[in-house]
Amino acid sequence: MSNPIERLTQKVIGGDAKKAALVVSETNLYYLTAFPSTDGALLLTAEKAYYLLDFRYAEAARAKAQGVEVAEFTSLNETIQSLLTKHGISCVYMEYSTIPYGQAKRFEKLCAECGAEAVLDMTLDDAIRSQRIVKSEEEIQKICDAQAITDATFEHILPYIREGVTEREIALEIEFFMRKQGADGNAFDPIVVTGANGSQCHGIPGNTKLQKGDLITMDTGALLHGYHSDMTRTVALGYVSDEQKAIYDTVLKAQLAAIDAVRAGVRCCDVDKVARDIIETPYPGTFGHGLGHGVGFEIHEWPRFSKLDTTVCEPGMVITVEPGIYLPGKCGVRIEDMIVVTEDGCRNLTHSPKELIIL
Amino acid sequence: MSNPIERLTQKVIGGDAKKAALVVSETNLYYLTAFPSTDGALLLTAEKAYYLLDFRYAEAARAKAQGVEVAEFTSLNETIQSLLTKHGISCVYMEYSTIPYGQAKRFEKLCAECGAEAVLDMTLDDAIRSQRIVKSEEEIQKICDAQAITDATFEHILPYIREGVTEREIALEIEFFMRKQGADGNAFDPIVVTGANGSQCHGIPGNTKLQKGDLITMDTGALLHGYHSDMTRTVALGYVSDEQKAIYDTVLKAQLAAIDAVRAGVRCCDVDKVARDIIETPYPGTFGHGLGHGVGFEIHEWPRFSKLDTTVCEPGMVITVEPGIYLPGKCGVRIEDMIVVTEDGCRNLTHSPKELIIL
Repeated sequence: MSNPIERLTQKVIGGDAKKAALVVSETNLYYLTAFPSTDGALLLTAEKAYYLLDFRYAEAARAKAQGVEVAEFTSLNETIQSLLTKHGISCVYMEYSTIPYGQAKRFEKLCAECGAEAVLDMTLDDAIRSQRIVKSEEEIQKICDAQAITDATFEHILPYIREGVTEREIALEIEFFMRKQGADGNAFDPIVVTGANGSQCHGIPGNTKLQKGDLITMDTGALLHGYHSDMTRTVALGYVSDEQKAIYDTVLKAQLAAIDAVRAGVRCCDVDKVARDIIETPYPGTFGHGLGHGVGFEIHEWPRFSKLDTTVCEPGMVITVEPGIYLPGKCGVRIEDMIVVTEDGCRNLTHSPKELIIL
Repeated sequence: MSNPIERLTQKVIGGDAKKAALVVSETNLYYLTAFPSTDGALLLTAEKAYYLLDFRYAEAARAKAQGVEVAEFTSLNETIQSLLTKHGISCVYMEYSTIPYGQAKRFEKLCAECGAEAVLDMTLDDAIRSQRIVKSEEEIQKICDAQAITDATFEHILPYIREGVTEREIALEIEFFMRKQGADGNAFDPIVVTGANGSQCHGIPGNTKLQKGDLITMDTGALLHGYHSDMTRTVALGYVSDEQKAIYDTVLKAQLAAIDAVRAGVRCCDVDKVARDIIETPYPGTFGHGLGHGVGFEIHEWPRFSKLDTTVCEPGMVITVEPGIYLPGKCGVRIEDMIVVTEDGCRNLTHSPKELIIL
């Protein structure tokens, strides 16, 4: 398979020497060049791809960035204009969804000054999305490598879950362990919520101490070589009430049924519905978020297992399956795996156990 | 002093019941409400401020967000439209520099459907900037608290700097120590570069092992309650060559002179020039970045000590002073403090030593 820049250039520009695409979002820059930069720009032309970077990044990029010629700039605007003029470009595609409004207006003006039209529609975004939404085997391997760290971290953290330990202490140990195992960072700030905090599905770990009878939800992931992993497990400390057990069993049942429903050709919204139907009858109004989201170069990307996403599953899509039940003031349970869609089902990339663990 | 939302509302809207402002950038949302959210929106009206959040954040925001009424949405668009209609709004200011282009166009359309005009110019941005660029005493204290962690970390890390240790091991120990000291996170990924890597001023810590005769540059900071700290120190391992010593002394001389030049009424570009002149004569072309940047709710904010920034220093501005000399393939030195501008000079918020330390 050709490199990501060649594929994108082929799709958006074809061989048209008068067309160019300008990429500025940090995520897409990293995805396309394997070299992250907060202030760079990638100019794709039929002939060549230029990575425009300032002094701070140029030296490192020359050694590491893939498939590009590094053009060091002191004025980004002037460098873009000189390249547009040099190549006789008349049409420049930009990232409609992500480019900041002010920057888009500035680029629009500088393109016009060179006789080029800035195209601010979904052409470039759709091309990048269709490329990123289906992962290559190499990309799936990178996500698996990130998930292997997350699985190891779950095993590592279980003995730390004791009465009197705080959410924050658990979250820190998770972070440190992941980093020591080689993670480049957290895929996102770890969520560790216990007891009544468990109903805050995006809660921030605080100084609440774990108590016997608590359910503890841990939503964590590792970042490795640009790729993310994402897993949630809820465990119990000491004992569980019948109600807690019933909630856990319902979430697990919903999760297993949804995973079972995934296969190429199924719509994302229909997978969401499988889990939602199982939860909504016994626990109406307690599952307030979508069932899952794509994972890859971003922690949340396309597609979504949600009521609204009619995307049809394709082999190679990596998506989380994470139903939850949240009872404000009481508790919460969420169970999350990452799966990759296959022709006749899916492969689960998550290997941590999900039977209820009582510590 | 009234809260940030009241001040901003007063500045942008005054008492005009027909005007509103819509804030969507994560940083501004956090700054204004003290409650971060990636998918929220803040609608300011003369009468009331609404924080629009989905299910995942609404419960926690009701407990923590300041000066707002939390409006839980299932459709952001519909909720905005219903509030614009309810208040009879005819004019909505938006964040020109940061709102993504596609989102701006979507909001423009939904405003038009309610008979309101979306104002996409610098009005709102300028108001937020002028409010954030000068820090209150409370904000300066928060930055000092973050810097206290960074200073403690520098003292902690010195004994770890030994032959054979890798850049990455040092960076990890810095991260872990800051987190254990109470930091909410890194202000940015720590930069630890040694020997020839030192010329990459934004280098990523790798597996390069420290050797005697290396200069080691560490650029680190802590994040605490939304506020950042930022400090760089370069130390030597074993011994220094005459050339390394001369470079270090030049950077330190430039840094001290620049700090000495800071006071209310001086232009930022003139402070930059003081340091640049000292470096450029003996080491032309080796100081490729600006002298410093504002620090606060973002790690890089306004103003800049750079050739191009003619902003006049005002009491309360917090800015880094960080000259550097970089010799590709050889070494690099950078020394960075954070200062707060005062009427007749500045106060240094950084307390770590800067005489050359040879370990």
